[in-house]
Amino acid sequence: MEFQYQNSYEVKDKIDQSKIAILPIGAVEAHGPHLPLGTDNLLAERLSAKLAERVNGLQLPTLPYGQVWSLRNFPGSINISNDALIHMLVDIGESLYKQGFATFAMVNGHLGNGTALKEAARALYETCPEMRVFYFFYPGMNQAAAEVRETDSAHSTYFHACEIETSYMLYLAPEYVEMDKAITDIPDIPMHADVTPTPWEEFTKTAVLGDAKLATKEKGKYIVDIALENMVKLINM
Amino acid sequence: MEFQYQNSYEVKDKIDQSKIAILPIGAVEAHGPHLPLGTDNLLAERLSAKLAERVNGLQLPTLPYGQVWSLRNFPGSINISNDALIHMLVDIGESLYKQGFATFAMVNGHLGNGTALKEAARALYETCPEMRVFYFFYPGMNQAAAEVRETDSAHSTYFHACEIETSYMLYLAPEYVEMDKAITDIPDIPMHADVTPTPWEEFTKTAVLGDAKLATKEKGKYIVDIALENMVKLINM
Amino acid sequence: MEFQYQNSYEVKDKIDQSKIAILPIGAVEAHGPHLPLGTDNLLAERLSAKLAERVNGLQLPTLPYGQVWSLRNFPGSINISNDALIHMLVDIGESLYKQGFATFAMVNGHLGNGTALKEAARALYETCPEMRVFYFFYPGMNQAAAEVRETDSAHSTYFHACEIETSYMLYLAPEYVEMDKAITDIPDIPMHADVTPTPWEEFTKTAVLGDAKLATKEKGKYIVDIALENMVKLINM
Amino acid sequence: MEFQYQNSYEVKDKIDQSKIAILPIGAVEAHGPHLPLGTDNLLAERLSAKLAERVNGLQLPTLPYGQVWSLRNFPGSINISNDALIHMLVDIGESLYKQGFATFAMVNGHLGNGTALKEAARALYETCPEMRVFYFFYPGMNQAAAEVRETDSAHSTYFHACEIETSYMLYLAPEYVEMDKAITDIPDIPMHADVTPTPWEEFTKTAVLGDAKLATKEKGKYIVDIALENMVKLINM
Amino acid sequence: MEFQYQNSYEVKDKIDQSKIAILPIGAVEAHGPHLPLGTDNLLAERLSAKLAERVNGLQLPTLPYGQVWSLRNFPGSINISNDALIHMLVDIGESLYKQGFATFAMVNGHLGNGTALKEAARALYETCPEMRVFYFFYPGMNQAAAEVRETDSAHSTYFHACEIETSYMLYLAPEYVEMDKAITDIPDIPMHADVTPTPWEEFTKTAVLGDAKLATKEKGKYIVDIALENMVKLINM
Amino acid sequence: MEFQYQNSYEVKDKIDQSKIAILPIGAVEAHGPHLPLGTDNLLAERLSAKLAERVNGLQLPTLPYGQVWSLRNFPGSINISNDALIHMLVDIGESLYKQGFATFAMVNGHLGNGTALKEAARALYETCPEMRVFYFFYPGMNQAAAEVRETDSAHSTYFHACEIETSYMLYLAPEYVEMDKAITDIPDIPMHADVTPTPWEEFTKTAVLGDAKLATKEKGKYIVDIALENMVKLINM
Repeated sequence: MEFQYQNSYEVKDKIDQSKIAILPIGAVEAHGPHLPLGTDNLLAERLSAKLAERVNGLQLPTLPYGQVWSLRNFPGSINISNDALIHMLVDIGESLYKQGFATFAMVNGHLGNGTALKEAARALYETCPEMRVFYFFYPGMNQAAAEVRETDSAHSTYFHACEIETSYMLYLAPEYVEMDKAITDIPDIPMHADVTPTPWEEFTKTAVLGDAKLATKEKGKYIVDIALENMVKLINM
Repeated sequence: MEFQYQNSYEVKDKIDQSKIAILPIGAVEAHGPHLPLGTDNLLAERLSAKLAERVNGLQLPTLPYGQVWSLRNFPGSINISNDALIHMLVDIGESLYKQGFATFAMVNGHLGNGTALKEAARALYETCPEMRVFYFFYPGMNQAAAEVRETDSAHSTYFHACEIETSYMLYLAPEYVEMDKAITDIPDIPMHADVTPTPWEEFTKTAVLGDAKLATKEKGKYIVDIALENMVKLINM
Repeated sequence: MEFQYQNSYEVKDKIDQSKIAILPIGAVEAHGPHLPLGTDNLLAERLSAKLAERVNGLQLPTLPYGQVWSLRNFPGSINISNDALIHMLVDIGESLYKQGFATFAMVNGHLGNGTALKEAARALYETCPEMRVFYFFYPGMNQAAAEVRETDSAHSTYFHACEIETSYMLYLAPEYVEMDKAITDIPDIPMHADVTPTPWEEFTKTAVLGDAKLATKEKGKYIVDIALENMVKLINM
Repeated sequence: MEFQYQNSYEVKDKIDQSKIAILPIGAVEAHGPHLPLGTDNLLAERLSAKLAERVNGLQLPTLPYGQVWSLRNFPGSINISNDALIHMLVDIGESLYKQGFATFAMVNGHLGNGTALKEAARALYETCPEMRVFYFFYPGMNQAAAEVRETDSAHSTYFHACEIETSYMLYLAPEYVEMDKAITDIPDIPMHADVTPTPWEEFTKTAVLGDAKLATKEKGKYIVDIALENMVKLINM
Repeated sequence: MEFQYQNSYEVKDKIDQSKIAILPIGAVEAHGPHLPLGTDNLLAERLSAKLAERVNGLQLPTLPYGQVWSLRNFPGSINISNDALIHMLVDIGESLYKQGFATFAMVNGHLGNGTALKEAARALYETCPEMRVFYFFYPGMNQAAAEVRETDSAHSTYFHACEIETSYMLYLAPEYVEMDKAITDIPDIPMHADVTPTPWEEFTKTAVLGDAKLATKEKGKYIVDIALENMVKLINM
Repeated sequence: MEFQYQNSYEVKDKIDQSKIAILPIGAVEAHGPHLPLGTDNLLAERLSAKLAERVNGLQLPTLPYGQVWSLRNFPGSINISNDALIHMLVDIGESLYKQGFATFAMVNGHLGNGTALKEAARALYETCPEMRVFYFFYPGMNQAAAEVRETDSAHSTYFHACEIETSYMLYLAPEYVEMDKAITDIPDIPMHADVTPTPWEEFTKTAVLGDAKLATKEKGKYIVDIALENMVKLINM
């Protein structure tokens, strides 16, 4: 149920019955030739819809701007600072708390938002002590992805516009994928990328970190459904 | 053309051809029994689409959270501070500037955002001197609304979920209007509401500031089209 | 009664008897050839004195620096950021609250301060819940000015060094007006001035927005006295 | 010459001829039974007038609010945070720099403002490299006061509403002194007042730190004139 | 070579010859019964000494306070906010840049500092464009630790006062280890610890995440030496 | 007893028995040819150790970075802003309060930190009302130094790498003093150094403000022991 399409007269009851707010948050960022700039928004939004249905949650409008420092110099990327993001998320969370929500689940579609979401959650931990705040980024996906991937990951934590993320899109938002444009571009990510600020143009021209051609809806479904189950369990715990 | 559905390979040319970014910005806020919480988002988004078409602009994803101090205590309202909003808008604007845009037009669907948008525009005036930044809130609507309205306005600058705003919705997003639930509730807004912080629950229980029953698509079209023409002129000047 | 000329031994009783603090706030800003840079300070201060007398308020020393972004490039203008202004006003308000005041009335002589005053009042609404905070800018003047003015207003909300403001000065601080230098300069304020940052040097060389020659003490008295009555009513409500 | 009484047409020439801006800054603070709350404002303002005359400077309107942490709990005190004060002073300084001033002399009448003034001056040192910024607090007064005082100082750096400050008032603003109410109250300031936050109510009920009865105009003139000479020399160096 | 034991006359030449500043940064935090609160400081400091020797770097004094949100409620923990830490690191970095350093290597002994160090490095990337900034946390340790550890890790990224960290201490600072007090306490870290703010007292009473009894100097040396080699390579690249 | 060498199991009892935390804070700053950059750290640390012993306090790890604006352009100086320093000190203080400390004594080895320490103490006065916070900088040293010094002080409040500070080092950290390199360099500090931002390179090339050759361990002991006694008294009062 989408929160913003409710009216003010009826929403109070719905909040009372659900108590769970779900915020999709993504980014506008280069995702290679075959995926749109808004890939992370689409993923977050559609995964949130599935989650809302499963836990009887109220889905908030997508916050479509995120922290994309690493790819900010690529065409189309829009980069938000962590400070701005944290501030807005804390404001949203505090409003939800006053509105009577007991759970605020941020469903993140973009790894780069992770720092801001965790910081916002810790701030809300102080100011809204009785509200649980989640920052989800495909919980449990690492193991699941390892099971289905046919190529090695280009990096221990990054994945981007690759076999994995493209599979997510084929499952959740296939109408936005142009598989005929998918490419294979496995970069050699230098070790220093983990220990010094390293814009991604240093090691990729495509913003694709892997073999997008190997993406399938099935792989996407396999991983995303596991992440979804995990989110359901965590919210219901 | 929606920016986030472009891919990174093609978007650079499209930016170069357009140079115009259009950001819809609204809010999640009580709008009475007949309009959804996301009314301002829907209006901003659809008006932006029309504007983008007219000026060959690139429409950014909607920023769906705004400053709703006055109605923050009504069911469903989500309130963002001016500081958070300004920070995010400045970050977006600076990214657009680096991406090569020459015009950043914020299409605002919620009066309460006005302060933040103007402040953000002034900040960008310093940091992005060659980019024009607009903060639009239905430019020219006051005169146009005066021509078509059948009831007096409840306030010199506020209008909310009333004859006017409901008409906008009937024109731009009719599928979200439940006219059978529309009410007439013309509040007596006290003079002190203009000179001291005054939550709207002091003078309205409905959040409707007028006679929503009198709304028509035609009134909405009349005013909104004038505002649209004004925006087109201003961007093209 | 001017607060700063009281001594610490006697002021406690006076605060208890009055409970009303009145802060004049103006600006240092270009006001054409016939009015001094400190026009807004003089107006705020003298209007505050009248108000203090009427409501038995304690008049604080004038805060003589304001936000003059629009005219900041004119000779003599001193521009303060909204953030600095808000911070100082909140500090003043919180001190007054601790001192036992129940009403903090900001009497503003400069339109550009409006945003900061409203924000400060909202901040104090949270931290000083039992103190009423007013941000007055000639309440009710729009209608009154329409009744007496002989020329059209150059803008729907701006008035500056014109028939109206010069009349205020002829009423409140005539010794600082040089009517022989008064000019007529009705600018054509472009529509974009309302929707994009627009320094006033784009449309005026004089900083006079109208026909200062038509100013009279009587016009000033008519409008200012109405504003004064309104302030008295609002404080006493 | 008072800056705010100039008009915008003529002030540019006056700035060019003077290049020196003088800002009086004081505070609203308890000063015992015989001196008004605005003592520091009066002193700063009148000393500034003398200085302006001596160096052909332009005297800005007095900033009448300062940091009075130590006496904030006394009746009538209004306390501003260092942060607010620094922000406003930096804004004023940057405006003066853009207006063409080469010297910005802050004439401080309240010891507690010292930290903020020094910090503001250092900030301006970076942003306005070609403007000299002074933070004056009676330069050279320590030695001069030692020569004329008849009682020991209650503290190595503090003096307040005592023989010395009352003498300043008798010289600079005698009409605001009520010598018949002057008292002798030499507090025993504990050593810990220098090393831990210590509101002055811990050691004084009067806010007078000494023997105000011994104040004379002559003592005030002696010290203040030396301070004035020092300021003149420093500005002209 | 320890920077702070140099004198100002000779240090300029040493900076010119080295160009490399090495900052140990740790924390004060509970580390179980067998390790001191300052474990992370000791590790960072001694590893930095080895690194400084290898790359001819200048070792700065240890910054001994870090972000320990997760264990802040344990006896002895001192928790610094990310904002304070970032601000201080940026200030240090900018000073080093002005002093002529070309490399600023932060050697981090505490995982919780990671966010602040990365943010600080990104800020310095803008303000000190020609200085390389590293945030090291035992680079390459994950694989090396997997090779030597005899127990499974309690968590995919956390390790604390366990087989691994105790081994580091036995290698780098054995005089501070009380192996006779070492315990085995392998907590069951709940899945939600990764997605919602979770103070560690929820799953451990000891703050030991593993089997400290299995720690040996050899294991520590094996991993730390690999990390050291990696740091040397990264700095020399 | 050094806090960071305690373990988490035993430290709680030690906090309960002591209740006193002692934080040495210094700086990295040029101190002439005969003293190391870390002089203020060494002094603060060793004086803290003596103090801890006397009052049964727990000595925290030294915060080795301070505000050195005046000497920031000298080789080896590392300058921290007041804001960063205040933020970190407040964070440390609030953690200590939660840990059960009743006294937080900052032992400052560097005059330039004074402003930040006082501000931090005032902030903690609000947030930790039951903890006493001290900012010590050799309390009582002025009189004691006057008794033993053989040369006049170069300045009324500054002393640096001179007869006095070198004596402190000869008493507290003699192994870091190279007396054979000590010089005599009594600068003529201009009056404007007290009233306008004045980097010390304007009046000294050595950073020595006096005659370091006259330093003796005895002088250092005389003054430092008096300061130590004063700190003991103040903490025990």
